[in-house]
Formats: sequence, structure tokens, C-alpha cells
Amino acid sequence: MSFERPNIRSLHGYVPGEQPDSGDVIKLNTNENPYPAPAAVAEALAAIDVAQLRRYPPPTARGFRQAVADRHGLKPDNVIPTNGGDELLRLAITTFAGAGDAVGIAVPSYSLYPVLTEIQGCKLVAVALNPDWTLPQDFAVTLNRAGVKLAMLVNPHAPTGLLTPMSTLVKIAESFDGVLLVDEAYVDFVDPEQNYSLIPLLNRHRNLLLLRTLSKGYSLAGLRVGYGLGHEELIAPMLFKTRDSYNTDLVAQKLAEAAIGAADAAEQTWKQVRADRRLLSEGLLALGFACLPSQTNFILATVPSRTTAADVYQGLKQRRILVRYFEQDRLRDKLRITVGTPEQNRQLLKALAELLA
Amino acid sequence: MSFERPNIRSLHGYVPGEQPDSGDVIKLNTNENPYPAPAAVAEALAAIDVAQLRRYPPPTARGFRQAVADRHGLKPDNVIPTNGGDELLRLAITTFAGAGDAVGIAVPSYSLYPVLTEIQGCKLVAVALNPDWTLPQDFAVTLNRAGVKLAMLVNPHAPTGLLTPMSTLVKIAESFDGVLLVDEAYVDFVDPEQNYSLIPLLNRHRNLLLLRTLSKGYSLAGLRVGYGLGHEELIAPMLFKTRDSYNTDLVAQKLAEAAIGAADAAEQTWKQVRADRRLLSEGLLALGFACLPSQTNFILATVPSRTTAADVYQGLKQRRILVRYFEQDRLRDKLRITVGTPEQNRQLLKALAELLA
Repeated sequence: MSFERPNIRSLHGYVPGEQPDSGDVIKLNTNENPYPAPAAVAEALAAIDVAQLRRYPPPTARGFRQAVADRHGLKPDNVIPTNGGDELLRLAITTFAGAGDAVGIAVPSYSLYPVLTEIQGCKLVAVALNPDWTLPQDFAVTLNRAGVKLAMLVNPHAPTGLLTPMSTLVKIAESFDGVLLVDEAYVDFVDPEQNYSLIPLLNRHRNLLLLRTLSKGYSLAGLRVGYGLGHEELIAPMLFKTRDSYNTDLVAQKLAEAAIGAADAAEQTWKQVRADRRLLSEGLLALGFACLPSQTNFILATVPSRTTAADVYQGLKQRRILVRYFEQDRLRDKLRITVGTPEQNRQLLKALAELLA
Repeated sequence: MSFERPNIRSLHGYVPGEQPDSGDVIKLNTNENPYPAPAAVAEALAAIDVAQLRRYPPPTARGFRQAVADRHGLKPDNVIPTNGGDELLRLAITTFAGAGDAVGIAVPSYSLYPVLTEIQGCKLVAVALNPDWTLPQDFAVTLNRAGVKLAMLVNPHAPTGLLTPMSTLVKIAESFDGVLLVDEAYVDFVDPEQNYSLIPLLNRHRNLLLLRTLSKGYSLAGLRVGYGLGHEELIAPMLFKTRDSYNTDLVAQKLAEAAIGAADAAEQTWKQVRADRRLLSEGLLALGFACLPSQTNFILATVPSRTTAADVYQGLKQRRILVRYFEQDRLRDKLRITVGTPEQNRQLLKALAELLA
């Protein structure tokens, strides 16, 4: 006998990228930062006394929220701390879309969105991206027609790495009747010349919710800390009602606060990744791959037509190099490759050259 | 304009006990362990290199689950790791009770249960405990009649501290058609002579789900680690479908694994708390309080009728001693007092004697 409710029984859970135990793998499959977190994070870790863990942590992570607010020129009321960015996605659905309500996404995109939508018993409105991966002009109209309560867009986009212009998102936020969650998991890797920032819009667009994570930009995927930014009326119900009462632990709060305070140091890694992204793209192009211009820490590369992405993925895996292969429409001929260190990228290109020879 | 869905809008969020910033408070209000975690936890903390946090953690916390399985004579498939015990409550509701389904509890009890039930849009079936705080004989019948999909009972009970006998729970598990979650947050403080353990029943009663936490017994409230135990068919949908993909972070996993491995050391604190619980009860009785026989690390004490619990609570607070006061039916004349160190308990009794003089 199964006790699961019907929509959970029929659900296929989210499958995260492979996380091998062994350390001798070149891991370019889950978009981790190739460099460690700022030194201030190690200092914060060393300063923790286990005796402090005896007590419950600050429930709303005051210190961390203040650090985030300071960095973005916002108030703590505009910030909700979360146990990884994924928790914000779940909280947004829980708070803004009930069972039977419609949730909107663009496809392809982060495969967790449909899973969370299904768990909540919501109806998924999946709008296909244009052939050039841009959003359809009538995206907001489509959402409104379907009665969508919450839409989730990732920008820069995954898995393409493309940046949707601010003007496009502003128009959607303006016309869309529901909450627009922009998942900015990769925003730290956007070229500064793009002058991309939705933060100044938060006060004007009260339906705009931004997701940030320390997993990639701050090299803390193992710590599980993310946060949401929005108008305080949008943040309050998640912060005071739907969030698990102590959703971030004391260690995570302290390390995350230190990381945000050391953003300048983290920024050096973003700069390095951007430079190496360009070099890796050039290397891939030289091998016959087609690469989309990425504003993230990964590259979506179409394999040369004389082979298949599945074969290249397997060939790399045999050489102990992991990249991400998606067995799904529009992605079957592509690989998503995280930008690694210069040495890792060099070894990847060498392995690809051998596989394609 | 509010974007919250209607049941969130009308919801009153859970209010956790006060967590003061300052360290000079005698904090007997949230049932924390008065002694620090085992030394092995500090060693595990010292062994963590921030560079390890660059990568995602093991998604299902393999090492921690194995340690828990070893301790309880179970298999890792019987164990789900959670971000505090509270997350297991949420996951159980998400997995086993859909919007509109009924969730059963006994009242009074942990005030988070109704909040989580409401968030999921479930119907709450709240069964009143008998005047002597025992469960009504027809508890399971009542639940079945109401079509309850998931029932949550805390044992030993909070806020009374009383232990419901195993035989009672076995009968409920047998007759109840839904999932029976027994929240054993305080189980480590049960007298060993009680021979209380529901773990041997898990294989026979496939609807039985046990909640454990490291917050109290292992002095790690600040770390947010709990776990669920149950038949693997009950655990699997939460472990592989409804759980956030990386719900416990690497630091939490490593420290929790160390703590479980050092259960013998933690057990010394349980023994001490049990002894001090007896002394504190005797002290309270001598002051005219009526105390229920607690099997937890707290005591529910009825204040002498010449004063009010609210006044005593305030009087203690002015003396920088925090205890818990519940402004609700059947509890208005009572205080829930966490067992502290012998010195803290002595100071509490001294303050109470002054307040009642």
C-alpha cells in the first residue's frame, strides 16, 4: 500500500547532476565555482565554537540579511534568507500559487521548476522559447490568459547562458498580473559592461522577486545559502509565514554573512571565470563546436555533427571529465560545460580533441 | 495589492520562542540542552576546509544516514535526513496530504502542526486530549472517520512532558488508515527503565514515521539537523521526490554524523538532565507548583493559585530568566520550564521563591 498522494506517486523527482565521491574527477557538470570561497569565510568558520550550536539560531538570520541589504542598497525587510536558492523557488510556489493554480515557466530551463510545480499540485504553463532562445513577445499575455499566479524565469538563462535584456524583463513585470520570480543564480558572472541589475526596479515593480545564491558566485554550493530580494510586502509572507521557522543554521548564517562582506574577493573569481569563459569558447569553436555567447559560468556547446553529444559526454566521462548532457528536446546535440580553472579547461579541450580526432 | 494565496493571507505564522541576542540570560524557554555537543563534533568542525564547500554536498547525506542506520539497527533506506525536525513535518504533509485532505493532531501540542497544515491547504482535525492529558480511546476511529491522511503526535508529549505508552501508539498505528508521524523530538530524555522504543515496530507498521532531532539530545539546535525513520516505502517518496534536492549542507552532515557516532557522550547529558529534572520538580513542588511527571527535558508546572502564570513569566523575565508561557486553553495557568544546569535551576527556584513570597 502506498500512502503518497496521487500527484506525488506519479511524479518523477528532480535528478541533480552527478556528485562523485572521488576527488580526481574534473567536475564541469554542476556549475560550481572553480575557486574556493573568500578567506573571510574560513575565518568565520574557524571562529565558530560548537557550544554556540547548542542554541537555536537567529530565526530570520538578522546579521546575514543586514549584510545582504547593505551590499544591494536595500533594507533587511527586502531580504529573505533561504536554504539554498532552491528553497526560495519552493517558498514562492507555496506562498503565491495554491493547488490547481497555474505556474508559468519558459522551456527549456531549470528542470526543478516543473517538479516543484507538480509537488504543489499546480498546473504548469510551459511556454517554448523562440528558436533563437529569446522569450516570445506575448509571454506576459500568455501567462495572464492562463491565469498564471507565479512565473519563474532564469536570467542569465540556463542552460543557454544567454542574458535576457533588462528592458524585456521590465515589460514582463509591468504587464504580468502575477509574481515574476527572476532566478539570478548566475548573475555574478554577467559582464559588468552589460550594466545588468534588476535591483533598482524592486521598489517600482512590487511583483518582482529576485533569487540569488551563494552557491556559484561565492563558491559555497556545499553550504546551501541563497536569498530572495523583493518589495517588503512580497517578502513578508515568506519570511514570517511559509518559511520553516529556522530554515538557515547558525554556521550557514555566519559563513554567508562573511562571504557577502567579502564580495570584492569573490569578484576576483568572477572576473577570472569570465576571461576563461572567452578562452574556452574559442577553444570549443576551434574544435568545431558552436557556442552560445554565455553570461554565466558555463557554456552551452553544440557538438560537431559528425558525432553525438551523448557519445562525447560518455567519452569525457571515461576520461574522468564530467559535463552535463540533457536528454531532452532542443538539447540532445549539446553539452553544458562549466568553466573550470585554466588547467581544467585545457584538459577538457585536449580530451575533446582526442575524442573528435 | 497582495499576491499571497488566500489561505496564506489569513494565516498567522508560527511564533518561535524568544531567542535573545545577549548571553547573560538564563534561557529555559526553548528546550535546548544545557551542555555542549560531544567533543567529536568540535573535531569534525575543525576538520572542515572551506574549499570543500565549493562543491554541492552529497544530495542524500549518505554518511549521516549510514551513521543513523547503524545506531538504530536499520538500513540507510529507512532514514531521511532533514533540515531540522520541522522539515520532516512539512515533508510528511507535502507527501501524504494534499490540499483539502485532512490532517489529524491532538491538542494541545506543538503549535507548528496547525500552521503547516494550513500552509498546505489541508483541513485540520484537532482532537482534544482527555483531562488527564491521555489520548481518547477512539482517537484512531475519529481520525479514520474524518478521512485523515496523516496524523502527528508528539511523544513524549509537549508541552506536558508525559510519555504515551508504546501499547497505545501500536494500537493507533494498527487501526489508523493513514500515516502516523510520531514526533520524538524529546525521546532521548526518556528514562531507560521505560524501555520505550518504537523503532522495532517500523518494519511491521508501514504507516509509522518517527521524527528525531539532534537539536535537543545532541545540543545542536543551531545546526538544524533532524531525521525521519520509517519503512523504506514510506521514506522513499520524501527522500527522492518532495525533499529539496540538497536539503542538508555539508557542514551539517559532517557534524551530525560525528554527533550520532558520539551518542555515548551525548547520553551523559541526558542522564544529567534526567537527574536534574527530578530535583527541579521537587523544588517546584516545594514552592507550591504542581508538576506533571516529565519524560522530557522540560517540566510543565502549574503556578500556585495565588498568582498567575503570566505574572510569574513576566517576573522571571525581569530577572533575566526566560521560560515559556502559552496564552491558550488549558495552559494559561502553567509554565513550561526547560531543565537547565544545576546552577541555572537553583537560580530559577530562588527567583520563583522571591516572586511568590
